[in-house]
Amino acid sequence: MKFYRKAILPLGFKASAVASGLKKSKKLDVALFFSAVLAKTACLFTTNTMPAAPVIVNRQSLAKGTLFQAILANSANANCFTGSAGVISARESAASLAIGLGVKRENILLASTGVIGKKLDVQKIKNAIPQLIANLSVNGIFQAKRAILTTDAFTKEASVKINLGSKNVTICGVAKGAGMIAPDMATMLAFIFTDANISEACLKKAVRSCVDNSFNCITVDGCMSTNDSVMVMANGCAGNKLISAGRDLALFSKALATVCLELAKLIVRDAEGGSKFIQIKVCSAKDFGEAKKAALSIANSNLFKTAMYGQNPNFGRIVAALGASAVKAKESDLRIKVSPLHKKDIDVQVFLGRGKASAIVYTSDLTPEYIKINAEYN
Amino acid sequence: MKFYRKAILPLGFKASAVASGLKKSKKLDVALFFSAVLAKTACLFTTNTMPAAPVIVNRQSLAKGTLFQAILANSANANCFTGSAGVISARESAASLAIGLGVKRENILLASTGVIGKKLDVQKIKNAIPQLIANLSVNGIFQAKRAILTTDAFTKEASVKINLGSKNVTICGVAKGAGMIAPDMATMLAFIFTDANISEACLKKAVRSCVDNSFNCITVDGCMSTNDSVMVMANGCAGNKLISAGRDLALFSKALATVCLELAKLIVRDAEGGSKFIQIKVCSAKDFGEAKKAALSIANSNLFKTAMYGQNPNFGRIVAALGASAVKAKESDLRIKVSPLHKKDIDVQVFLGRGKASAIVYTSDLTPEYIKINAEYN
Repeated sequence: MKFYRKAILPLGFKASAVASGLKKSKKLDVALFFSAVLAKTACLFTTNTMPAAPVIVNRQSLAKGTLFQAILANSANANCFTGSAGVISARESAASLAIGLGVKRENILLASTGVIGKKLDVQKIKNAIPQLIANLSVNGIFQAKRAILTTDAFTKEASVKINLGSKNVTICGVAKGAGMIAPDMATMLAFIFTDANISEACLKKAVRSCVDNSFNCITVDGCMSTNDSVMVMANGCAGNKLISAGRDLALFSKALATVCLELAKLIVRDAEGGSKFIQIKVCSAKDFGEAKKAALSIANSNLFKTAMYGQNPNFGRIVAALGASAVKAKESDLRIKVSPLHKKDIDVQVFLGRGKASAIVYTSDLTPEYIKINAEYN
Repeated sequence: MKFYRKAILPLGFKASAVASGLKKSKKLDVALFFSAVLAKTACLFTTNTMPAAPVIVNRQSLAKGTLFQAILANSANANCFTGSAGVISARESAASLAIGLGVKRENILLASTGVIGKKLDVQKIKNAIPQLIANLSVNGIFQAKRAILTTDAFTKEASVKINLGSKNVTICGVAKGAGMIAPDMATMLAFIFTDANISEACLKKAVRSCVDNSFNCITVDGCMSTNDSVMVMANGCAGNKLISAGRDLALFSKALATVCLELAKLIVRDAEGGSKFIQIKVCSAKDFGEAKKAALSIANSNLFKTAMYGQNPNFGRIVAALGASAVKAKESDLRIKVSPLHKKDIDVQVFLGRGKASAIVYTSDLTPEYIKINAEYN
C-alpha cells in the first residue's frame, strides 16, 4: 500500500471548479466530480433531523438506485432550512447538470455547505455548469478540492494505491470541514473516488465501517451539522477481479480506512481556532461502544478543551467528563495518562479497568479564536 | 407570597463561616448551617458516576434516615477523585462536627466544591469547627453564603415568606455555581431551609419537581459536575398545621419553586465569562421531555452560544441544534423568534408545531472570557 498526502484521481474520474459568485470573495465555490462510467456508490448522511435540501434530494435518488456518475457540490450556502424552494433549487441544479453531461438526473449527487437558512441563488450554479463541464480534467481535482472549502484553512486530501492481482487500484479522497464537527458525522463533506471493481454489498459494508472509525470518531465542538455527507464512488475502471471477499476485500478496506482516517484527522487539525491536536484513547473498556462514549464525553467537554488550551493539568475535568458519560469504571481502577501539554499534539490515555476494548477519538482544544470565528461567521 | 432578594433564615436555623486556609486567598471557605431541632431533609445529588466523597458519604447517611440537623460545606477543594482517603476525610470532618455540636454523625450532611483530584487537607476543616460552632447565629448566613463560593462573582440567595393558617412560613436558599453547569444538575450547591411543618413525602415530591424545573433547566457549558447537591431542610419551627395535601401544599410548592428558580437563574447570570442571559422556550412540543431536550440542545450548542456572544443573527445554528437533538418537527411548521441581540437578556422562542407542551431553559453565551477563566483555573 502506497500513501500520498495529495489527491490523485483514479482512472475514469475527472473534476473541475468554478467561481460562481456564491462566495463574496469571488473564490472557487462550485465543484464537479465526474466518472466516465456509472459508478457503484455508497453514501452516509447526517442523522440531523433538519437535513439540508441536497441531503433530502440525494436520499430520494438513492431510493431509486445506487449507480451514480457525478457529484455537484457548492460552498458558501448550505441550502438548509430553505423549505420546498430549497429542494426545488437543488433538483434544478441537478437537472441542469444532467442535460449538460448527457446523463440522467437520478445519477447525480448533490452537496452543499455554508450558511444555514439563507436562500440559495441557484441561478449562479446553473450559470456555472457549462464551464464546469468544459473544464473537466484529471488535474481539475486541484481546483475542486478548494472549491468545497468554507472556513477551512487548508485543503484535505489523501490517496492510496494498492495492487490487486496485476492491477493497480487507487483510492482518492477530498474533504472539507473545520467547525460544527461532531458525530454523526462531522460538519463535513467527503468525496472519495476509486477505480476498484467491487461488489455493491462489500462497498457499502466497507464504507460504513471506515466512517464509524474515522469521521464518526472526531469532534471539534460537539455540534452536528445538517449537511454532513460522505460519498464513495467505485467505477471499476482499474479492471481488477471483482472484490467480493477474502484478501482483496481486506486490502481494499484497509486502504479505504487509511484515506478516511487521514481526512478525518486533517479536519481536526484544521479545527476552527484550535491550537492543539488531541488524541483520546480509552482502553480496557467493556466494549467499543463504551470506550467511544467515554472518549467522546471527554472530547466534548468544554472544560477539558479549555484546560488543554491553557496547558493546565486539571485532570479532574477528565474524571468529571468520564463520570458524566455514565461510564461505570471504579475510581480505584481508573488510570489517566496525558503527554506533555506544551506540545501541539497531545495524547490522552484512559484505562477503565473493565475489559479489553478500546476506542480512539480525535479533537481540538477550545480557544478564544474559535469564539471569534463563530461570533462573526454568517 | 412575599419575595426577598436576600437570605433570611427561617425560625430555628443558624449559620456561620470561617476562613480555614483552604482558599489561598484567606477568604471564607467553610460554612456551617444548623437547625436547633432535627429537620426532615430531601436531597438530590449529581448523577455523575464519579461522585465526590461528600456525595458518597451523604448517600450512606440518607440510607439510614432523612432527619438531619447540620450541613458542613467547604469550598476550594471538591474532595473528588481522592479515593478512600477522601471518603475517610469526609467522615472525619462530620464526626468532629458531631462531637462539637452534640449531635449524631449520621445527622450531618456534607458538601464540597472546588478542584477535583487534589487531596483535601481535612485538618484545616477540623481546626475550624470550634469557631464555626461558636459563631453560629441567625446573621451568620451572610458569611456562610460567601464561604461556599468558588469562581462565583456574587452570592446567590433568595427568600420567600408565606402565610399558612395564622402562621408565617419562611423558605430561604443560598447557592453557589458559575461554571461546570449542566443538568443533572448544575455544578452547584444549593442549601434551602424552611421552618415549615411538612410531611416527608410531600417535601420529597415538591423538591424533585422544583429541581426539575429550575436547577435541571440551566446549563452554562454542558459539563456535569461530580459534586452537585441540592439539600432542603424543613424543621417545622413555624408551628403550622402539617402540610400533607391541598392548598397548603400548593402554596408551599409554589414558594419553594420560586426560591429554586431564582437561585438557578442567578447561577446563569453569573456564568463564567458570560455576557448574555438567554431564556430558551420551546413551545408546541409533544410533551415536556421533548421540549426540554430540544431547548437544552440549543442551549448547549457552542455555535449557538458564540453567535449570541457575537450578536450574530445566524439562526441556522438553532435549526442545526434542533435537528441534532433528533426532534421530529417538520421544517415547514417550525417558527423561531429571537429578541434583539444587542441587549443583555435574550429571549429565544421556538415553536415546533407538534403539540401543547413547553419547556424553558436558561443559559449564557460562550465568550473568550469563559476560556480565559477555565484555561487558568486549577
